[in-house]
Amino acid sequence: MTDVPRSHPRYESLRIRDAIVAGVKRGITSEHGLIAHGRGEAFDYLLGERTHGFALAAIDAAARMLAHASHPVISVNGNVAALAAADLVRLSEALEAPLEVNIFHASKSRELAIRSVLQEHGAGEVLMPSTDAALDFIDSNRKFVHPEGIFRADAIFVPLEDGDRCQALRRMGKAVVTVDLNPMSRTARSASITIVDNVVRALPLLLDGLRKLAAGGDGGHPPAFDNLTQLAAAERAVRSHVD
Amino acid sequence: MTDVPRSHPRYESLRIRDAIVAGVKRGITSEHGLIAHGRGEAFDYLLGERTHGFALAAIDAAARMLAHASHPVISVNGNVAALAAADLVRLSEALEAPLEVNIFHASKSRELAIRSVLQEHGAGEVLMPSTDAALDFIDSNRKFVHPEGIFRADAIFVPLEDGDRCQALRRMGKAVVTVDLNPMSRTARSASITIVDNVVRALPLLLDGLRKLAAGGDGGHPPAFDNLTQLAAAERAVRSHVD
Repeated sequence: MTDVPRSHPRYESLRIRDAIVAGVKRGITSEHGLIAHGRGEAFDYLLGERTHGFALAAIDAAARMLAHASHPVISVNGNVAALAAADLVRLSEALEAPLEVNIFHASKSRELAIRSVLQEHGAGEVLMPSTDAALDFIDSNRKFVHPEGIFRADAIFVPLEDGDRCQALRRMGKAVVTVDLNPMSRTARSASITIVDNVVRALPLLLDGLRKLAAGGDGGHPPAFDNLTQLAAAERAVRSHVD
Repeated sequence: MTDVPRSHPRYESLRIRDAIVAGVKRGITSEHGLIAHGRGEAFDYLLGERTHGFALAAIDAAARMLAHASHPVISVNGNVAALAAADLVRLSEALEAPLEVNIFHASKSRELAIRSVLQEHGAGEVLMPSTDAALDFIDSNRKFVHPEGIFRADAIFVPLEDGDRCQALRRMGKAVVTVDLNPMSRTARSASITIVDNVVRALPLLLDGLRKLAAGGDGGHPPAFDNLTQLAAAERAVRSHVD
């Protein structure tokens, strides 16, 4: 960011972009992860780069679901580690849920680098993929998971997920919370709860939601949440002017 | 592409994506270029990944403008070299216009690698940025151009351009034809003619248009072309369902 002044109209987007490029240099983000980030930038741009009501509703539902899960797990890939490692560690503490590294394009060195960045931000144990446990319904490298983590989880927080794995987790009966800026993606459509927002904005809001739940209990009956209804609202926002 | 079957619903998009990742491995595409590619993917997805009428109108106007220019030049960056080197060389031959390397993030080795890939596809001389000539109205590395190329061009074909440089070229009185999948970008809004289409689809169509002009003359009065009208149509296509 040395060459972009804070006054630049695209400063925040460029700051985030530099974080993801730094992730490549650190060996935690893949080249395909950079392209995926660019897709997210375009959808965020169309959304006016702000958190909409449909995202707030999904964040509220996600906080309740994760807080009430018996064995929640947080799945971490290279992009989210580059963008939000500190907040992932805070989420792990708030939920008492393990962090588990799981990446799309197989690379042992990248898995280890992701673990390192989480631990630099205060994570204790970080679960790693293991050939001792594999998900059903999926062929790729991503089927390998930790037996005490994603394998036995009842609810999984998987920001920036791929569609195949999201569908596999759902078919295994697990609840999936994802963060995806494209409301039309297979991930968005197959998750239990899809937060259509930039993960950099959504994670602090999810942490706030969990803090409020912990402080005040459940606040009675939560509002009904329907993922497809929220996705339809998100798609309308992408497709219409939001300036 | 070894692991993606031709039957995959996203095959063409994945094939193009692999070409751009190969460009990184070859040293011609930058990390920021990968993110830019991802943004393009998202807009192409919203456009239904097909060439629309507004793009055909812009391609027709671009063929006429470039064919009638006194000194047209083709500006080449890392992304377009990775995606369409062969078609750039064909375009250079059809227009008898030089290819000039000009990249956003300064790197001598990347400039030389881009020249190599063009020459492997049959390019003769490729003009390189030179400190002998600089554009007005711009501070970055991109101001340095070749005195016999972009500096004295009256019309420039600059696919996948950045907004600042596009504006600087226009303020210097040069006609600019660009290819940009985001009809709302500063580049799209400041170019003389903006082809809102995937450069991989647009370049063969531009070559066809030039062939037809060469074979049949100008075909009388060309249809009137207004760039902002076409951009408005493109934005409507992005913002509405196109499946």
